Amino acid sequence: MTDATEALKTAIIENYGTPCPVIDLDVVERNIARAQRWCDEAGVANRPHIKTHKSPVLAKMQIAAGAAGITCQKLGEAEVMADAGITDIVIATNLLGAARSGRLASLQNRVALKVCADNPVSLEAYARAASQAGRVMDILIECDTGQKRAGVETPQEALILAQLIKENDWLSFAGLLFYPPLDGWPQTQRFFDAVSAGLAPLGMSAGIVSTGGTPNFPNIGKLKGATEHRAGTCIFNDLMMVEAAVASLDDCAFQVFTSVVSRGGNERGILDAGSKTLTSDTGGLEGFGRLVEHPNARIHKFAEEHGFLDLTRCNDKPRVGDIVRVIPNHVCVAVNMVDQLIAVRENEIVDVIPVAARGMLV
Amino acid sequence: MTDATEALKTAIIENYGTPCPVIDLDVVERNIARAQRWCDEAGVANRPHIKTHKSPVLAKMQIAAGAAGITCQKLGEAEVMADAGITDIVIATNLLGAARSGRLASLQNRVALKVCADNPVSLEAYARAASQAGRVMDILIECDTGQKRAGVETPQEALILAQLIKENDWLSFAGLLFYPPLDGWPQTQRFFDAVSAGLAPLGMSAGIVSTGGTPNFPNIGKLKGATEHRAGTCIFNDLMMVEAAVASLDDCAFQVFTSVVSRGGNERGILDAGSKTLTSDTGGLEGFGRLVEHPNARIHKFAEEHGFLDLTRCNDKPRVGDIVRVIPNHVCVAVNMVDQLIAVRENEIVDVIPVAARGMLV
Repeated sequence: MTDATEALKTAIIENYGTPCPVIDLDVVERNIARAQRWCDEAGVANRPHIKTHKSPVLAKMQIAAGAAGITCQKLGEAEVMADAGITDIVIATNLLGAARSGRLASLQNRVALKVCADNPVSLEAYARAASQAGRVMDILIECDTGQKRAGVETPQEALILAQLIKENDWLSFAGLLFYPPLDGWPQTQRFFDAVSAGLAPLGMSAGIVSTGGTPNFPNIGKLKGATEHRAGTCIFNDLMMVEAAVASLDDCAFQVFTSVVSRGGNERGILDAGSKTLTSDTGGLEGFGRLVEHPNARIHKFAEEHGFLDLTRCNDKPRVGDIVRVIPNHVCVAVNMVDQLIAVRENEIVDVIPVAARGMLV
Repeated sequence: MTDATEALKTAIIENYGTPCPVIDLDVVERNIARAQRWCDEAGVANRPHIKTHKSPVLAKMQIAAGAAGITCQKLGEAEVMADAGITDIVIATNLLGAARSGRLASLQNRVALKVCADNPVSLEAYARAASQAGRVMDILIECDTGQKRAGVETPQEALILAQLIKENDWLSFAGLLFYPPLDGWPQTQRFFDAVSAGLAPLGMSAGIVSTGGTPNFPNIGKLKGATEHRAGTCIFNDLMMVEAAVASLDDCAFQVFTSVVSRGGNERGILDAGSKTLTSDTGGLEGFGRLVEHPNARIHKFAEEHGFLDLTRCNDKPRVGDIVRVIPNHVCVAVNMVDQLIAVRENEIVDVIPVAARGMLV
């Protein structure tokens, strides 16, 4: 390890303690530029999903690099972004709770939102919010082409919703939202073509055709008619993205600096970061993150504030008091645990970035 | 479902949206009284672990019901509790990050803390913090009698640490901290007896002998010489405690009110609560929580903001727009996701309680 890295670790623990979430802004900027380039080359607009970073500061960096707008997953995230002056916002989930609480109407009054639906109940709630706001609401119809997440499962259902939107004075049809399975772009094309064919006789067409996902970057552009792509994780990356072969370990911008606080036995160690820091989300991988300094150490279990290390395969074992850096399996949920990110460049602390939309449930 | 429950659901979504974390204060008070009674009957002091609720309001309810003090897991939690006027605090983890950041010294300067160690590096850090604070620090030695978590694994190691504490002017030996395995109280007794025997010739004895864990309440009092018990989850309870047979479903005071936002197919449904609300912590159980209204529905998977329902075994399936209540597998990590708890009694909203120490990493 370099002296500069050691000096950074000392600066982190003396200023902030451990565990401490840290992002490398040079890597962040490289990641932002790369995602933008991939979208540019595919001829689709880039609309990054801010659920990963939840920070207006970072959203504005994405926009400055060429993003056409942003995607949010919760109304509370959109509120924070709107407060920061960002107004081209897609909210990519059904918002029943936010609609019925009045918060959707309040924000729609300030900003013309693009929201998302896969059922008539949501459309009714959106129309009510739009009428309260006094502003027509743009609606994207979410379509499921195999992920078995949210979204209508057939073109016919999409067309029924399009008809309902057309008939409602407070709603305006804005387009279609897809999250194609990695191997499901051909069926997504068939779904999109069938919906387009059905929209034409209604005098309607999809202004926005959105695809999604960092792991889908290798497929970007394969859907003819797509107008934009929304991806979140690519700004930071994580072990899931490394596993998906869309990022290398060097592209992982987010690390948790954590202290080794105990060595229960020769083959065991304990970190001061557990499920309340990194969450129990394994992302389908083995273990709970990778130690930069000790890649052969295995974080095999979490207590709330402890990470348990299996050091069996470690020759150079960490000692109590060592500060080690963990790359999480799933960065989106880890960032959501913390109120701020310590930003560094070349091992110097340069900024503290609030995770302003952290914990926005609604 | 009663009309009163329906009215509460409407009040929750109209005032706060969904998902929304709700506690029933009547159940909370009953749980607090029961834990206190169990401790009283066993003849040990009650020192509840506030990591579950992270709220000074609720900590003061526990103290008013008879608790002798509180247990924290993080320095940041102790800071919040001290700010609220609570001063009898055990911090039950090695605090290297907090010690090296200066925050431990700052708090020790205000409040005489009891902190915890299982190694000489932590003792050195504590002595330095105590000297900065100008106040001797009380040290509990953490002992592992089979859980393979933190703690020294042999009485001999405990005695070496006791000797180090004795030799350091800034440290004072306060006692021993145990988390006996559920079936490991006999070996905990042997461990304790061996340490006690070794302390006597040093002219030392353990003022505090602490046992821990809500699942250990059936064993409380079995360690002769124990002076206090620290349990966290019992204030709210959860499916893990039901599984451990120390609580019934009626004892679960915390529920997340969530909307059904999509019905992707006849056998599928989607909630607006996912891993960013309830976390991916299964607590070793099957699925991710229990739906009060549809106990045969299975939350089989989480996305960040969605819970995926398998409705195969549900006769009466939830509809889009329904509000359903989820009891989490593990309440401690779920509470740590939210900034406030909506408090109800008899289906009326009576208070909003800040989770003031939420997300205290250090």
